[in-house]
Amino acid sequence: MPDLSDLVPGFCEDPLDRCDDVRGDADKLAACLADRHAQRLMLDELDPVTDGDRLARDDLTVDAGGSDHVFLGREADGAPLFVALNPDLPHGGAYAPRVWEAATLLTGPELSLYATARSLIDWHARHGFCSSCGGATQPVRAGWSRRCVGCGAEHFPRVDPVVIMLTEHDGRVLLGRQPRFPAGRYSALAGFIEPGETVEGAVARELFEEAGVRVVDVRYVQSQPWPFPSSLMIACTATALGDELRVDTQELEDAFWASADDVRAALDGEDGARFVAPPPMAVAHHLLRHWLARQG
Amino acid sequence: MPDLSDLVPGFCEDPLDRCDDVRGDADKLAACLADRHAQRLMLDELDPVTDGDRLARDDLTVDAGGSDHVFLGREADGAPLFVALNPDLPHGGAYAPRVWEAATLLTGPELSLYATARSLIDWHARHGFCSSCGGATQPVRAGWSRRCVGCGAEHFPRVDPVVIMLTEHDGRVLLGRQPRFPAGRYSALAGFIEPGETVEGAVARELFEEAGVRVVDVRYVQSQPWPFPSSLMIACTATALGDELRVDTQELEDAFWASADDVRAALDGEDGARFVAPPPMAVAHHLLRHWLARQG
Repeated sequence: MPDLSDLVPGFCEDPLDRCDDVRGDADKLAACLADRHAQRLMLDELDPVTDGDRLARDDLTVDAGGSDHVFLGREADGAPLFVALNPDLPHGGAYAPRVWEAATLLTGPELSLYATARSLIDWHARHGFCSSCGGATQPVRAGWSRRCVGCGAEHFPRVDPVVIMLTEHDGRVLLGRQPRFPAGRYSALAGFIEPGETVEGAVARELFEEAGVRVVDVRYVQSQPWPFPSSLMIACTATALGDELRVDTQELEDAFWASADDVRAALDGEDGARFVAPPPMAVAHHLLRHWLARQG
Repeated sequence: MPDLSDLVPGFCEDPLDRCDDVRGDADKLAACLADRHAQRLMLDELDPVTDGDRLARDDLTVDAGGSDHVFLGREADGAPLFVALNPDLPHGGAYAPRVWEAATLLTGPELSLYATARSLIDWHARHGFCSSCGGATQPVRAGWSRRCVGCGAEHFPRVDPVVIMLTEHDGRVLLGRQPRFPAGRYSALAGFIEPGETVEGAVARELFEEAGVRVVDVRYVQSQPWPFPSSLMIACTATALGDELRVDTQELEDAFWASADDVRAALDGEDGARFVAPPPMAVAHHLLRHWLARQG
């Protein structure tokens, strides 16, 4: 098994200085647009375009207007970085095989850049109209919000918090399988946090809804942006009060309690392992690895 | 000083079984609507209507259609609980003095019910149109989403994650004051998590943007729904690398490092305290209380 102890999940190494002060300041933004070092991330619709272990960039053309680009921030060398809006993006397509391929090539910070750019571009493409009045919206604040030309309402990019939790009972952890998963894959259970819920409340509700399991002692572990389209994964552990399962087959194809040996075999990629583990890019992989490390 | 050690922040005691299985099942929903014990929360626009320490309820009229109500879930006694949509709500109004007044009357679970109902009603009122195509939307899934009658896109209620963080340096904590705060009030710094950020990254960015402070060792403490209109407060602690401040006066009127004595005097409501503490309803109050308890 390779040593992955220093790895962090994908999308967690944002390298940008986001320069919030530039977004609302027309002069500062114009200076960034005119900067001869300014660059633009290239995307193929929502997919990444790689150049070795980096995302491909091109020079920002001198006639690029601010309103058709998002100002992502400054890179480590101070160069302003933009990404072009694309109003013609196809909708949907939450999962993109080309992202998984690119993720094996890109450095962590480059993959994080991609997450920010993708979420923003996708959000712009799906928010050309005002949810309040139906009027057309236009990008403002260097692409960090959109304003309705009719009623003036300002709309900000969504970030949708999701709980993902590894639940333990008597030395085993609960894993589930969604129908859309690759063959053999099982992972931690997950679900969107609803209005009026705490993180801890959402963990308890989801585990009861999807698996019939009641839990206590919910603990936060780490968080991860997941840009499909704009989730914030909030990874937790929990302790189940019992091991009887009542699986909601609308949500899960199957669920079971995995032993430490099951988890070790899956993380090692052994032939005959009881399940295929989520990849290191996914925070669920790290929840499993941390749990296994504590089993001695 | 009253003993508040067992208090939790406001809005954190959701008493509902949200019954996700009812939302997508027309027969189950019809049965809940027809249930003679079904009740409806009363709101005055977005403000709560109290009945002693509870929210006021009325019987669901037999002719109430499912499409103009949100099914909130079942109460502890099994009774289905709804709240009526109100498409004529005025927009805006993030802070409502009547909520603070009601919060002193309501039990914790009732205050939590209010948070869920308010966020949902407000979201519906501001999402009558499809952000993708500008078409009209209609409530579906018992009021837990809206679907565009034009393009068919489904839109889900927003939950906006916000970091709020108490930052320590050499036995003191950083507090800031927003211009809209009541006289003398200081609190923990806070800001919205952006696309492509982790919780920990957002904490570090916000503290540098607003106060010029670099931090390490960001730790999650607890979370809280904050229904103005639909935030999820993610409360953290962090350790500052230095105490020099560079306050962003666009965001903060003032900021300073408070000692344990300053915090104790403020939480005790002493005359002459250096600042007015946030109320127990706010998670910042609990961050301060937990920090003070660790100072010995």
